[in-house]
Amino acid sequence: MPTPLSPAGRTLAEPDTPFAVVDAHRARRNIARLRARADRLGVVLRPHVKTAKSLDAAALLHDGAPGPVTVSTLAEAEAFAAAGYRDITYAVGIAPHKLPRVIALVRGGVTLRVLLDSTEQAMFVADAAREARVALPALIEIDCDGHRGGLRPDAPGLPGIGRVLHDAGCLDGVLTHAGESYFAHTAGERREAARNERDAAVAAAERLRAAGLPVPVVSVGSTPTAHAADDLTGVTELRAGNYVFFDLVMAGLGVCDLADLALSVVVTVIGHRPEYGWIVTDGGWMAMSRDRGTAAQPRDQGYGLVTDLAGTLIPDLVMTGASQEHGTLTARDGAALPELAIGTRLRVLPNHACATAAQHHGYHVVDGAHGPAAPAPAPAPAPAPAPAIEAYWPRVTGW
Amino acid sequence: MPTPLSPAGRTLAEPDTPFAVVDAHRARRNIARLRARADRLGVVLRPHVKTAKSLDAAALLHDGAPGPVTVSTLAEAEAFAAAGYRDITYAVGIAPHKLPRVIALVRGGVTLRVLLDSTEQAMFVADAAREARVALPALIEIDCDGHRGGLRPDAPGLPGIGRVLHDAGCLDGVLTHAGESYFAHTAGERREAARNERDAAVAAAERLRAAGLPVPVVSVGSTPTAHAADDLTGVTELRAGNYVFFDLVMAGLGVCDLADLALSVVVTVIGHRPEYGWIVTDGGWMAMSRDRGTAAQPRDQGYGLVTDLAGTLIPDLVMTGASQEHGTLTARDGAALPELAIGTRLRVLPNHACATAAQHHGYHVVDGAHGPAAPAPAPAPAPAPAPAIEAYWPRVTGW
Repeated sequence: MPTPLSPAGRTLAEPDTPFAVVDAHRARRNIARLRARADRLGVVLRPHVKTAKSLDAAALLHDGAPGPVTVSTLAEAEAFAAAGYRDITYAVGIAPHKLPRVIALVRGGVTLRVLLDSTEQAMFVADAAREARVALPALIEIDCDGHRGGLRPDAPGLPGIGRVLHDAGCLDGVLTHAGESYFAHTAGERREAARNERDAAVAAAERLRAAGLPVPVVSVGSTPTAHAADDLTGVTELRAGNYVFFDLVMAGLGVCDLADLALSVVVTVIGHRPEYGWIVTDGGWMAMSRDRGTAAQPRDQGYGLVTDLAGTLIPDLVMTGASQEHGTLTARDGAALPELAIGTRLRVLPNHACATAAQHHGYHVVDGAHGPAAPAPAPAPAPAPAPAIEAYWPRVTGW
Repeated sequence: MPTPLSPAGRTLAEPDTPFAVVDAHRARRNIARLRARADRLGVVLRPHVKTAKSLDAAALLHDGAPGPVTVSTLAEAEAFAAAGYRDITYAVGIAPHKLPRVIALVRGGVTLRVLLDSTEQAMFVADAAREARVALPALIEIDCDGHRGGLRPDAPGLPGIGRVLHDAGCLDGVLTHAGESYFAHTAGERREAARNERDAAVAAAERLRAAGLPVPVVSVGSTPTAHAADDLTGVTELRAGNYVFFDLVMAGLGVCDLADLALSVVVTVIGHRPEYGWIVTDGGWMAMSRDRGTAAQPRDQGYGLVTDLAGTLIPDLVMTGASQEHGTLTARDGAALPELAIGTRLRVLPNHACATAAQHHGYHVVDGAHGPAAPAPAPAPAPAPAPAIEAYWPRVTGW
């Protein structure tokens, strides 16, 4: 189990490894950047809390106020509702058996929006709303680029679904997610993906309005498009989640820099296999996840890049192998393997923050403003002091 | 959160999806098969509990007795020790900061063996044992096939490490793991891998004995080699873990049949995208893990094969895509996509049981002996009744 925060003075040199660390300074900077963008674009920011799944991390999103959020599970919705959040969108297609928990939250005073993309779902949501005598606000999922669920904006069934919801007092708007933007490797491509996402959502909303249906919410967003959109006319809200932590996939796309990555996993060197060019650590896929998102990018970062305990990148050292509780570090492109004695602690920057964070019960939190903030050209000549642990943030888990 | 077991009468149709299910009938059969093999081979079976991480599942291993086990984390060691297990091998190379927890368990009466492969580790283990005035039994890790940690059996440093441990009363034996066997696609290759594994462990033990050092434990094992070994002369114990559940990787190798797979994840259909040939479910990588072990096999099974709720395989239906909380099912090789209404529950058989199980807090347990035991050639004409839930088995988590 992760070690809960004990009295002051603890540092990253103390908890048993592996464990997850959040650099709160970087997270705050990432949050401020997107908030400023949303303000400039004139839209509400509704962060997706599925990455951190942490009430403490979420408190940074809206200056401590329980602002609008997006969730990926009813467990998140319930945890956030219990903490006072009243404006929550559950952005996974609704199944009938989940409605009792949805209705319980709505009865408890939460505006909990569900998502759907079929007449079948609209009908069971409308029926449940009538039976329970509550409004169950629903968003129609729009497919803007052929990823996951949703209706194309020109789908013949769209107005009919809107009508079924409207007649039960449940139609709240439309929502789309530019899944394709995770493969947009230039700023121009991401800007194009953001325009396409906006255009699809607005077109769907206009079709519904043309059928006489009110559409208060027009929701768009993905971390890449949220950072690229230049015009969100007609959109009411922007969603993004990964940006609080960022990760190697986002850095590989160019959405952020390596110095923005706020999540890492502390591991310990447990062996050397010089005959294979390996340093072995106690952080395997159980600590990092099996996610290898950068394998589809021009620069494959293995299971992650490696920093020292203070957060300074160790050049050319990559975690290239993982078993359940073993990680293998190798030097890239014939670089020399650094000398790292058994017991040395390192931090591994993950491919995919959502997946790596999910392997942990919570985060030890450091304030990176007091340590190295950017990758250095070479390892520090003398080890920097281990960063102090400022807090422990538990995660919401399960479904 | 997973729903704890509530009163009798509940079935797999009830808990909110996604959730993990164990077919206890299949698990018992898998356990009995390997136990019979170990008995025939004349070795102690020391199952690795890192796959199920469940005291309830472990109770099936030794007829309810707290027999010898292998663990992958100190959290598992502590949980099993608290449940009365007294013979535990921690099979990940030891780091110095983990010794206080090891010593606490040893002082509590547990024979907790640590693993190491360097003089550096042998020295800090020996020093800690002397300082704490306890024996810290240690196994020297042997590398039999170039995976992960360990010393080659002919490594010059081997006797010296044995001597350091012996002089502190800590030398307990040698341990090896045939990691290469996960890529052995024929019974002959696996038998060869098992011979190589045995030969490496026995050769290392003999070298230590030739140096005058006693070597009581000679430990080998992986699920593929444990099921292939034909002669374990000189070996004292056999380890394997995955076999309790098995998975698509093991079935792809031929170590088991699909009808042996005891772990699955129940998901719900939440959408259809006929234009892409997709059925969308609420089980994404958060429920299945990102493990794609079969991608390296001749038959890539995507994120998993799909059965109905009763466990009958739906032919040619494969989970080929995953986002955090969405799964995409597609038909293989141009087969027709089955008609599965929104709300339909399915079970997905995973690539890698260890990784999929780790995404859950525990298992709803069914007794597959009361339902379909083997894949059927076509979907059942009428849906079978949902299997009854017999128990809930929580998992040990964290480190």
